[in-house]
Amino acid sequence: MTAKLKTAVIGATGYSGVELVRVLGGHPRVATPVLLSRPEDSTTTKTESVTDLAEMFPALSGNGGYPLQPLSWPSLKQQGIELLFLATPHYASRTLVPQAIKQGLRVIDLSGAWRLKQAQHRAIYNFKDQDCATAEELTNKAIYGLPELNGGRIADATLVANPGCYATSVILALAPLLKAGIVDREHGIISDSKSGVSGAGKEPTSRTHFVSVADNFSAYAVFGHRHLGEILEQLSLNSAELIFTPHLLPIPRGILSTIYVNLNREMKPAEVESCFREFYGGKRWVRVFATPNLPQIQFSLHTNYCDLGFCLAEDGRRLVLVSCVDNLLKGAAGQAVQNMNLMYGWNEEEGLQ
Amino acid sequence: MTAKLKTAVIGATGYSGVELVRVLGGHPRVATPVLLSRPEDSTTTKTESVTDLAEMFPALSGNGGYPLQPLSWPSLKQQGIELLFLATPHYASRTLVPQAIKQGLRVIDLSGAWRLKQAQHRAIYNFKDQDCATAEELTNKAIYGLPELNGGRIADATLVANPGCYATSVILALAPLLKAGIVDREHGIISDSKSGVSGAGKEPTSRTHFVSVADNFSAYAVFGHRHLGEILEQLSLNSAELIFTPHLLPIPRGILSTIYVNLNREMKPAEVESCFREFYGGKRWVRVFATPNLPQIQFSLHTNYCDLGFCLAEDGRRLVLVSCVDNLLKGAAGQAVQNMNLMYGWNEEEGLQ
Amino acid sequence: MTAKLKTAVIGATGYSGVELVRVLGGHPRVATPVLLSRPEDSTTTKTESVTDLAEMFPALSGNGGYPLQPLSWPSLKQQGIELLFLATPHYASRTLVPQAIKQGLRVIDLSGAWRLKQAQHRAIYNFKDQDCATAEELTNKAIYGLPELNGGRIADATLVANPGCYATSVILALAPLLKAGIVDREHGIISDSKSGVSGAGKEPTSRTHFVSVADNFSAYAVFGHRHLGEILEQLSLNSAELIFTPHLLPIPRGILSTIYVNLNREMKPAEVESCFREFYGGKRWVRVFATPNLPQIQFSLHTNYCDLGFCLAEDGRRLVLVSCVDNLLKGAAGQAVQNMNLMYGWNEEEGLQ
Amino acid sequence: MTAKLKTAVIGATGYSGVELVRVLGGHPRVATPVLLSRPEDSTTTKTESVTDLAEMFPALSGNGGYPLQPLSWPSLKQQGIELLFLATPHYASRTLVPQAIKQGLRVIDLSGAWRLKQAQHRAIYNFKDQDCATAEELTNKAIYGLPELNGGRIADATLVANPGCYATSVILALAPLLKAGIVDREHGIISDSKSGVSGAGKEPTSRTHFVSVADNFSAYAVFGHRHLGEILEQLSLNSAELIFTPHLLPIPRGILSTIYVNLNREMKPAEVESCFREFYGGKRWVRVFATPNLPQIQFSLHTNYCDLGFCLAEDGRRLVLVSCVDNLLKGAAGQAVQNMNLMYGWNEEEGLQ
Repeated sequence: MTAKLKTAVIGATGYSGVELVRVLGGHPRVATPVLLSRPEDSTTTKTESVTDLAEMFPALSGNGGYPLQPLSWPSLKQQGIELLFLATPHYASRTLVPQAIKQGLRVIDLSGAWRLKQAQHRAIYNFKDQDCATAEELTNKAIYGLPELNGGRIADATLVANPGCYATSVILALAPLLKAGIVDREHGIISDSKSGVSGAGKEPTSRTHFVSVADNFSAYAVFGHRHLGEILEQLSLNSAELIFTPHLLPIPRGILSTIYVNLNREMKPAEVESCFREFYGGKRWVRVFATPNLPQIQFSLHTNYCDLGFCLAEDGRRLVLVSCVDNLLKGAAGQAVQNMNLMYGWNEEEGLQ
Repeated sequence: MTAKLKTAVIGATGYSGVELVRVLGGHPRVATPVLLSRPEDSTTTKTESVTDLAEMFPALSGNGGYPLQPLSWPSLKQQGIELLFLATPHYASRTLVPQAIKQGLRVIDLSGAWRLKQAQHRAIYNFKDQDCATAEELTNKAIYGLPELNGGRIADATLVANPGCYATSVILALAPLLKAGIVDREHGIISDSKSGVSGAGKEPTSRTHFVSVADNFSAYAVFGHRHLGEILEQLSLNSAELIFTPHLLPIPRGILSTIYVNLNREMKPAEVESCFREFYGGKRWVRVFATPNLPQIQFSLHTNYCDLGFCLAEDGRRLVLVSCVDNLLKGAAGQAVQNMNLMYGWNEEEGLQ
Repeated sequence: MTAKLKTAVIGATGYSGVELVRVLGGHPRVATPVLLSRPEDSTTTKTESVTDLAEMFPALSGNGGYPLQPLSWPSLKQQGIELLFLATPHYASRTLVPQAIKQGLRVIDLSGAWRLKQAQHRAIYNFKDQDCATAEELTNKAIYGLPELNGGRIADATLVANPGCYATSVILALAPLLKAGIVDREHGIISDSKSGVSGAGKEPTSRTHFVSVADNFSAYAVFGHRHLGEILEQLSLNSAELIFTPHLLPIPRGILSTIYVNLNREMKPAEVESCFREFYGGKRWVRVFATPNLPQIQFSLHTNYCDLGFCLAEDGRRLVLVSCVDNLLKGAAGQAVQNMNLMYGWNEEEGLQ
Repeated sequence: MTAKLKTAVIGATGYSGVELVRVLGGHPRVATPVLLSRPEDSTTTKTESVTDLAEMFPALSGNGGYPLQPLSWPSLKQQGIELLFLATPHYASRTLVPQAIKQGLRVIDLSGAWRLKQAQHRAIYNFKDQDCATAEELTNKAIYGLPELNGGRIADATLVANPGCYATSVILALAPLLKAGIVDREHGIISDSKSGVSGAGKEPTSRTHFVSVADNFSAYAVFGHRHLGEILEQLSLNSAELIFTPHLLPIPRGILSTIYVNLNREMKPAEVESCFREFYGGKRWVRVFATPNLPQIQFSLHTNYCDLGFCLAEDGRRLVLVSCVDNLLKGAAGQAVQNMNLMYGWNEEEGLQ
């Protein structure tokens, strides 16, 4: 057997980060990842001061430890690291990725820092690039890491921008229909999406307090969520063609998007199902449900699946899609590992079963 | 002070029923309600065999008891009962209501038995009326008990068909806009609605098992939920003009509907807000949120409020409404009491604060 | 009818505070309470900057507003306030109460500031009194506000120290047995207590983050919880005679204590039940369950009840008690109002039904 | 590599059963297990009529199917099955195990049917054996499958009685202390144990209805739970020496036991910790927490760990232990696979990481 790939992770203390460490830990072709503390700056919280991940996540204890070392590019080189995962906030990724690329590392970034090609969609992030030319260059170079759509380009990528969790659920549901040209785009598409609380991050706020979330449900960021831009870009839609409404579910993890589409011609359920089955034929991590069966959040929890199902109205025109992902796996860490598998020519399911 | 109104409840052992008993128990103008067991038939479950409601709901103990007596029309007469509440399944209501009306009682029925005027919408219930002429007559006589819309007719009603919980949340959100004639009805309206588990009733099923619901979220009855008919009827919409998608939330109670509407002309948020505020001016149990504030399920829990809020897209056309009710209060027992208040000329808020 | 009592609340923005505002708002003998902002100091959080409670708790909107005014003793006098509730942290109460008493106000303090007579138990709070003589005097003057035990002394109290939530559940379960002299105290008593998250307060921390609490359960502060002292003092136990272990439940509110006691003589279940029934005969807010029925947290939620039940081993010696309260009502705001009722000679159930 | 072990599972449609199928599916030394329907009898529910497990658990779909075949002993022989898992109710296991053993199969039974040697403890199960002699013989032959205690005897076992979930958490916490002879047994031990709802099984009942469990917490079966017997037997305690109180937590899975022990001599925390560390030295699936750190339910969820921690009172005598397991893994399916590993001489962690 060939030597195992050496990887490092910055941002392992967040929910996506720790999930990534778990998945990498069980990957047969990857050495135990090196965990790096983010360099201290005004945005670094005290959670970065832990020296072993198991102090913060006792669930990880008993496996020999998960020490965090301070980030040092020369040291990474010395240790033979080839691939760097960033599970950092977008502003941190915006600073760290150019440095990493310069060191010759390949990078999979889980933040929103490099997902967007169009300046209009980037505005919401308010990036403050120090070296605008490099930022521009990397923006062009970055591949949007949705394997089912961009598999070929991911294989050769230096920088993979791992998709947002909501975006994954919406794009995978709509791509087959849009590609088939059967969507009445002028009529407008609606994605009513619901996410568990880990999607809101680990920082304690009044919004993530147990008492605020339990026995509750709410919409937020209507017309203004950051993931809207990447959905539009990947599906080549304009902003008039999609409404995206996120909601907060009283569960720790999981996303379900209910998506409303009008078809531009009358179809039968079997035709719509074929459209999905053909598009995703041979794709390991998308499950198409036989209509009218619908996926539920529980079905894909703790897996890397995106589950898709639909109901078609009797008029053969109005289509209700349901798309589920685990926001920390197919919506983050699992998809990052799937991208790594493609980048190194491995089977897409390695380490994800 | 005048004598208190004497009421009776059939079906107090269900979630809506016991909530009704609680509300009536605190109503200043109503005597302690007489609780009646449903006559035994093939559909009666063993839960009907309790002799005191507190056996089944120990939360009610310590207040002198809630004895159940077997239903007997002569006995009701003797006890001076004037108003009968039914919190029974629709098929039971379909049998019991004609009997009650014949006895000269006024009736508020919480089931779906008498809500629908149009046969096409009734089909889903598959009623098996023994006396079709009476059923027809009562169907015509029944008033749909949504006080904010039908207040005047409720005052004089003999039979009030208390609205469905989902229907209440959807109709109250859409009525002002439709009445103002600003909805592009041809474009179609979508209500993506989410309910807590008490809406599914008290019978234990694999669907209501804790392990099936917790950490989960799912859509169900897409294009085929029973409440669709009453929404269409009350709003004078045809079935092509509305998609209604119910979902099951992992919470005990509460409904939130996210409703998507296209306006037929460009409007400003303030105009839309005015439309709601004018329509609901002076209405005690509807709260209109100042845009872009949105209601959440927690806000109306354990109250009789319907909370309404909205966001309008920058194009001034695409409108996202959010409507919340407690399915057991404004969506059932609270609304029933509000209807009673109207029927007896009392203030709409009596007993509901 | 006589004029309504004028009250004020400091600390209305916390969970106990807002519950208190709700209860006072429905009390027939009390005017709408004046809500006061805490004077700013280093410990005051930004939540104190709200000008109306409904901004923070939209559930309260639609009832005419809950404006907060800055604390000013002269202004309270002018407004005719007689009774002040403090739902502030203990260190704030330690400063504010002496000032309030000096102004001639009666005070019900919901914090731990004035509950403890014995210095050894106070140590854990680490009070930093500026005027030690006054603090000493008030400590002696304060009445521990558990109406079922100290009703008579509460009636005349100037300063009522409202009990802790855990303490309420434990003391009410044990008091009848200890008074009857049937507990083998040397053997030791154990209270294994479990509380919902609102007991941990409103401040967002990693411990109260939804993802930390949901699908979880944990013990904390074993041998070192602040409520231990007041339990020992009220029951005249020494620290070797009681183990108190708090746990965090994944629910918003409610406490259940499972308490293990050895009796010093063999008894029959009926004798033990009598012991409870006699002790609590005529007490409105304690419900004794007929053995072997046990209370559950749901039964007392949103009520002011303390529910008590027990199972006795066949040996007639080993007793397992179960005691439930809603930590925000009988464990805080409800008990405060019950104390107020005693202080003003009203029926103990006024405003609490 | 040698041929993979061929196994079969009866009762795969229950919570423990499906978890077992999941674990076996990822085990490197085991072929895909054959799933068998229970022979129909009066106690068989309709859930047995599924022909593929994925119909019932859509989470399993997309992996080539999990067909159920009717139980036929000759067919099992033909297929080369060596090891049979039973995740059936105890009365079904009581009938099926003798048949299986007669066929020469080795058996791991997850029910309570064969765990108890002493007739007094078996009484609660009310077994109705058709062939008492065989039942007696098998009872004697059965090995209680707790690997950390009975590892050696499990290796050679024909029939392994897999421990109860509660029992696993209690026995593993107490065994080291009892073996060291440092427990004051006369004083009595208390285990206040709390379990998630999957422990109550998959059958929908009023007790497992979401609305009954959510926002609730309750004690049940005080002094009378079935697992008490096996705890007593394994720890050689008599019934006067242990109180075991189960409680129902509003979470899907996980058990935490808080256990109260008096030591018979004054000890230091480090000594107690050593006692645990020595006992469990080299044991892969027990994690001992450094005092005063305590395990929480989340830490061992979805793992095969039993997590142990403790706090010792200042008097050096009163000890509070906390023990956590995932009731479906270390408390059921995971432990069954750990037992299989021992029975076939494999590493104890195979297939469980």
